[in-house]
Amino acid sequence: MTTAAKSVTFEGRFKMHRGGRIESPTMVYETWGELNKNRDNGVLIFSGLSPSAHAASSQADPSAGWWEEMIGPGLPLDTDRFFVIAVNSLGSCFGSTGPASVNPETGQVYRLDFPVLTLEDVATSAHLVVRHLGIDLLHAVVGCSMGGMSGLAYCVTYPGAARAFVSISSCTRSLPFAIAVRSLQREMITRDPKWMHGTYDPSDPPLTGQRLARKLGMITYRSPQEWEKRFGRERATDQHDAGKQFQIDFAVESYLQNHAEKFSGGFDANCYLYLSRASDLFDFSEYGGSLKAAFSRLLLERTLVIGVETDILFPPHQQRELAEGLAEVCKDTTHVELDCIRGHDSFLVDMDAFRPVICEFFDNDFQ
Amino acid sequence: MTTAAKSVTFEGRFKMHRGGRIESPTMVYETWGELNKNRDNGVLIFSGLSPSAHAASSQADPSAGWWEEMIGPGLPLDTDRFFVIAVNSLGSCFGSTGPASVNPETGQVYRLDFPVLTLEDVATSAHLVVRHLGIDLLHAVVGCSMGGMSGLAYCVTYPGAARAFVSISSCTRSLPFAIAVRSLQREMITRDPKWMHGTYDPSDPPLTGQRLARKLGMITYRSPQEWEKRFGRERATDQHDAGKQFQIDFAVESYLQNHAEKFSGGFDANCYLYLSRASDLFDFSEYGGSLKAAFSRLLLERTLVIGVETDILFPPHQQRELAEGLAEVCKDTTHVELDCIRGHDSFLVDMDAFRPVICEFFDNDFQ
Repeated sequence: MTTAAKSVTFEGRFKMHRGGRIESPTMVYETWGELNKNRDNGVLIFSGLSPSAHAASSQADPSAGWWEEMIGPGLPLDTDRFFVIAVNSLGSCFGSTGPASVNPETGQVYRLDFPVLTLEDVATSAHLVVRHLGIDLLHAVVGCSMGGMSGLAYCVTYPGAARAFVSISSCTRSLPFAIAVRSLQREMITRDPKWMHGTYDPSDPPLTGQRLARKLGMITYRSPQEWEKRFGRERATDQHDAGKQFQIDFAVESYLQNHAEKFSGGFDANCYLYLSRASDLFDFSEYGGSLKAAFSRLLLERTLVIGVETDILFPPHQQRELAEGLAEVCKDTTHVELDCIRGHDSFLVDMDAFRPVICEFFDNDFQ
Repeated sequence: MTTAAKSVTFEGRFKMHRGGRIESPTMVYETWGELNKNRDNGVLIFSGLSPSAHAASSQADPSAGWWEEMIGPGLPLDTDRFFVIAVNSLGSCFGSTGPASVNPETGQVYRLDFPVLTLEDVATSAHLVVRHLGIDLLHAVVGCSMGGMSGLAYCVTYPGAARAFVSISSCTRSLPFAIAVRSLQREMITRDPKWMHGTYDPSDPPLTGQRLARKLGMITYRSPQEWEKRFGRERATDQHDAGKQFQIDFAVESYLQNHAEKFSGGFDANCYLYLSRASDLFDFSEYGGSLKAAFSRLLLERTLVIGVETDILFPPHQQRELAEGLAEVCKDTTHVELDCIRGHDSFLVDMDAFRPVICEFFDNDFQ
């Protein structure tokens, strides 16, 4: 939890979407800008699997956030106009209640006793925060990657609670390729002897499995095209050692290693497992039995779907499916497919491509 | 080693391409059809990473081979016309010398004392077999996947030793995406505590790591399109257990598990590591310093390059690169891009698409 984060505990039972409940969950969030008099300029951001609520810097916490170039005065999510809210997803490990939190009923860390987590739970817990802030009508819900699905869950669960919806590199449900990748990532962690069925000591977590999982993540978050251009067959010169032939040799191997080391220590393994599985479980067509029925439950005035050509995890045809479904029920729907080379992660690393599209959407609000 | 396999040991030192040597390597191979009087109807097949020399059934071994529908009387590699030879790659574990073999100099299994393996070594050891069979001029070299690179190594090392070259779902060198995938597969094995720096007991190998590696293999050998059609979000009903939420749930997870269990017990882990690394190391441009220079060293009369649109491991633009390079030095070059949905593995599982192309190539031989 960073210095700018606010925390709120909702006393009482929180019923989970697929059964079970948690007692008095805590939600952590950050906000930027001011809520206007009508309380209708709120923009709620759902993040991907791994970020905290620290989406951007602020006076209280000047460190850069995960969407730093998107949120601020004069930026696409213009804090001179909007009251921007980012939540740390339920189930995560950056302040909001999750498998790494202490269960107030037992005094023990939940670990695998945490109930099955779904993106519906992520959505309803975020809704508690929005209500806590005194907001009945959001200007927009914005969701990135997994957060796009959380955003869909939000909009279908609370029809009319948001006027606009922006989906960034997301989809209506995960297809087998993404499920296979995530399943393998989870297995890399659960097969690590240090995982011990979730009972690992937090100071000695299943780092080996987590790092392997992160490497597979990076392989699917970026694109073969980017890496061909960036690394080719370049060697990681300072780490090259012909004598240790199964160590790092190529530059791309060194890149993966650096990313894996940077990430894995900072994220709780059980939380990762729960959120990863939640991404697999979400299926928008469960609302009414078909995608068509699900879309028809939405009450949105404007929507924007942005995808990236080189995204192999949330591929272009899934963006089209989402955009076409939204267009059926919301005339003011825009679909933009960007030709960014950096794959799924483009929304985090290719701001020059994303900013104008999001800018235009919010600049031309409801005109 | 199957009942149809023949074995030959080449007495003396075998110098490895990147340094080191092995003593008196044994090569295992199978043949189909008869060598003609001119000894010029030989077709040499280089396999992918994992198969044995048992590419097709025969009287001596009626069990189906890995390319059963391609080799036989009246089939594309027509054994009424051709003398077909398949070798078990040097470094593999199906009879040919590799890291799982006993080093005759020490009486100990090589394990990691086996020198760095390259596809050049796979090629030169296969050449020994060809010479042993009394063949100076091959009708064709055919290479699938990794074997396509071994075949290129063969043709550039022995210019004029084969009249034709057929590359199937292969390339001139591995790009960072493929290197990253293989590197991660190797790391899954080397991080398995049972690997023990290669000193595992063969009856208790690093199966967990091998199975994880095989799963990642399957994710890259098939295609997202195939899986979407085949599995969608279908559940593995008989294995579904909501209570064990990180166990197998979706059909695609069950499919991966079945494949992993089937494969991993049968392949030696160290051999896998060596062959996987050899695939990363091969770079055709090392022959003369550029691809152009390398292609100019070839002496081929006819070539065929077949690729598959949905192949993410050896993608279409790499097939085009190979075909264009070959066309520069061999006018009679054909490039076929098949729209098979099953990705890289199509050459093993989508015979109806591959057969006609290979048939046509060999039927219209040198007319």
